[in-house]
Amino acid sequence: MSDHTYKLTELVGSSPDGVESAVNNALARASKSIRNMRWFEVKEVRGHIDEGQVAHWQVTIKVGFTLED
Amino acid sequence: MSDHTYKLTELVGSSPDGVESAVNNALARASKSIRNMRWFEVKEVRGHIDEGQVAHWQVTIKVGFTLED
Amino acid sequence: MSDHTYKLTELVGSSPDGVESAVNNALARASKSIRNMRWFEVKEVRGHIDEGQVAHWQVTIKVGFTLED
Amino acid sequence: MSDHTYKLTELVGSSPDGVESAVNNALARASKSIRNMRWFEVKEVRGHIDEGQVAHWQVTIKVGFTLED
Amino acid sequence: MSDHTYKLTELVGSSPDGVESAVNNALARASKSIRNMRWFEVKEVRGHIDEGQVAHWQVTIKVGFTLED
Amino acid sequence: MSDHTYKLTELVGSSPDGVESAVNNALARASKSIRNMRWFEVKEVRGHIDEGQVAHWQVTIKVGFTLED
Amino acid sequence: MSDHTYKLTELVGSSPDGVESAVNNALARASKSIRNMRWFEVKEVRGHIDEGQVAHWQVTIKVGFTLED
Amino acid sequence: MSDHTYKLTELVGSSPDGVESAVNNALARASKSIRNMRWFEVKEVRGHIDEGQVAHWQVTIKVGFTLED
Amino acid sequence: MSDHTYKLTELVGSSPDGVESAVNNALARASKSIRNMRWFEVKEVRGHIDEGQVAHWQVTIKVGFTLED
Amino acid sequence: MSDHTYKLTELVGSSPDGVESAVNNALARASKSIRNMRWFEVKEVRGHIDEGQVAHWQVTIKVGFTLED
Amino acid sequence: MSDHTYKLTELVGSSPDGVESAVNNALARASKSIRNMRWFEVKEVRGHIDEGQVAHWQVTIKVGFTLED
Amino acid sequence: MSDHTYKLTELVGSSPDGVESAVNNALARASKSIRNMRWFEVKEVRGHIDEGQVAHWQVTIKVGFTLED
Repeated sequence: MSDHTYKLTELVGSSPDGVESAVNNALARASKSIRNMRWFEVKEVRGHIDEGQVAHWQVTIKVGFTLED
Repeated sequence: MSDHTYKLTELVGSSPDGVESAVNNALARASKSIRNMRWFEVKEVRGHIDEGQVAHWQVTIKVGFTLED
Repeated sequence: MSDHTYKLTELVGSSPDGVESAVNNALARASKSIRNMRWFEVKEVRGHIDEGQVAHWQVTIKVGFTLED
Repeated sequence: MSDHTYKLTELVGSSPDGVESAVNNALARASKSIRNMRWFEVKEVRGHIDEGQVAHWQVTIKVGFTLED
Repeated sequence: MSDHTYKLTELVGSSPDGVESAVNNALARASKSIRNMRWFEVKEVRGHIDEGQVAHWQVTIKVGFTLED
Repeated sequence: MSDHTYKLTELVGSSPDGVESAVNNALARASKSIRNMRWFEVKEVRGHIDEGQVAHWQVTIKVGFTLED
Repeated sequence: MSDHTYKLTELVGSSPDGVESAVNNALARASKSIRNMRWFEVKEVRGHIDEGQVAHWQVTIKVGFTLED
Repeated sequence: MSDHTYKLTELVGSSPDGVESAVNNALARASKSIRNMRWFEVKEVRGHIDEGQVAHWQVTIKVGFTLED
Repeated sequence: MSDHTYKLTELVGSSPDGVESAVNNALARASKSIRNMRWFEVKEVRGHIDEGQVAHWQVTIKVGFTLED
Repeated sequence: MSDHTYKLTELVGSSPDGVESAVNNALARASKSIRNMRWFEVKEVRGHIDEGQVAHWQVTIKVGFTLED
Repeated sequence: MSDHTYKLTELVGSSPDGVESAVNNALARASKSIRNMRWFEVKEVRGHIDEGQVAHWQVTIKVGFTLED
Repeated sequence: MSDHTYKLTELVGSSPDGVESAVNNALARASKSIRNMRWFEVKEVRGHIDEGQVAHWQVTIKVGFTLED
């Protein structure tokens, strides 16, 4: 593994259900165009409020994926 | 929307259930006195421990709301 | 309580289920050797990705416990 | 001046014109309800984009004002 | 305690004597209008200089207080 | 809007005129290849100096755009 | 001195009297089990409030000590 | 250019007109005593308020200049 | 140079040999698909440990490259 | 005051007595060569430990002084 | 791997030779008492100067190791 | 040592060879005008890229030196 180069990309996923769901939504969408995603870090958790309730969560993640040779 | 002024207020919500629930508890309490809450950011996630388990979560959020003209 | 000294230790808990579960797993493991854990702060939320899904969450927490006299 | 206590409040001002204008809009709106505003710090500069142009700037400021005795 | 919601407010206290005195001055002034203050964090320590000596200390604190039901 | 996924990209725009102009130059150039840009955040403001004057401003922004389904 | 390895440990000391006293209380307690403490950095200053006064200060320090060969 | 050493100095420039003007004022004043200024970074934007308007902007910059051999 | 727009991309390079080698490995791999790379900043230095030795270094860099007109 | 340019310089003052004393020692020493010092910010508080006690405090401050015309 | 709990410990390693050597010295010393060290992050790079040269490097690392069941 | 005052100055050293060499180049140049340099901290590591290779490293350091009485 020591010779790999990884690229990081930053995504914002949304969900009405919570943090975990927003991250999975972002990964599901990103996996359509990015292969070999390996890890992520949560950078920011925000959300929109509607009538005093969380309408949807927005979670910013940084995703690392392997650049193939 | 470009002429609005927003104010930010910082709250700490608590819940024995988790991050999402602590945020919703803070918003429910704040909506008694603040109208027009629009978005929030999570600033800190902490909690108290009792007998080796999370007793309750404490989530600090910054909430933005519209100042009416 | 004003005369107590606390020590902080940093742990990374893992879980396939989400943030709350990863924190509880870390506390359950740590409580085997640390007594008097009182509070925690979440410092980082990361995770591993397998086939475009979160395989497991990794949550870094700082835990404070009382140093007994 | 050494005995004064100040309070800080955080505001987001908006303007289609730029950073300075967004700050002045926030101060103009806030001065309707806050007296004795003394200084501000810019905490964040963001904006919305419409058709590849900045539609409006959003500047978050922290404002300090004197609490009167 | 797990169901409480707290609000955070940011204050700057001043004193010619030092950090502890500036914090206590801010709390004494704030307690005229805020009830149920529970904890504070020091965010910034600054001061004014006159003739090569500290003329007064200015300490910014974030104060948490309970929102009553 | 709650089901959208956004991607963030980081750009540095330049201008001899100032911060606002540097941001608009970056957006104008980026809009040739990125559709659906929605918001930006200013991350860094720097510049080059020539003969004791600002020769040009360099503003780093993070731009969010919608990933279409 | 160039071949030494140091370990850092994080402590929270408390005192009703102020920052310096809270640090010394933490060091006095820690010196019961840690030898060769060499330096510290203050990471956080917080406190509890009782009836509008600081009840006790809580100062988080990181302490470096020599690992003996 | 690879063998140069640069020194950084930190300045605060002021202007009633805005961010760009405050930076240029600082550079104009500094160029009286510093030669070979090459680049700057904006570190902080603050200002004073008078009667609900920005009275003057204060911009802190870090300036890099070449140390001549 | 004042009219250029740059894009930043984040990469993680690996090497058993050290920081400089990990950065050069990342640049060599990235130069297969990115032209006109101009500068980089080191954002994070990490590594994997095997039998009490550094097995390989992982260095995260942000790379700036010119967007051609 | 709006046309002044200030310069910032960073100092570390030491004292066996505490934070306030270390800051005043630094200012007293600096006032031998710097005129017109106006304000300071505390950037870091550290110290050396001898036999389980604070031997001396080291406080890093940033000092602003007026550049005369 | 998803069920493991890791503990983080912070070390400062020293070497007259450079960053890589200081990290390896810290790991070699730590491996006498810690088993199962898995990864590290560099948190700070400092050093002592003697006669205008680096006398030794001091590198602070955070090391993660597996807590065995 | 407890009564000394130190001053910090920020330098950027360059080298085609790597981090250690860039720091030593900065110190060698600075020692022509600054006496009694005692320690440094690395604040930033950057570099220029030429044809997909690091052309030279640029390391920003903060250097502490004793102000003589």
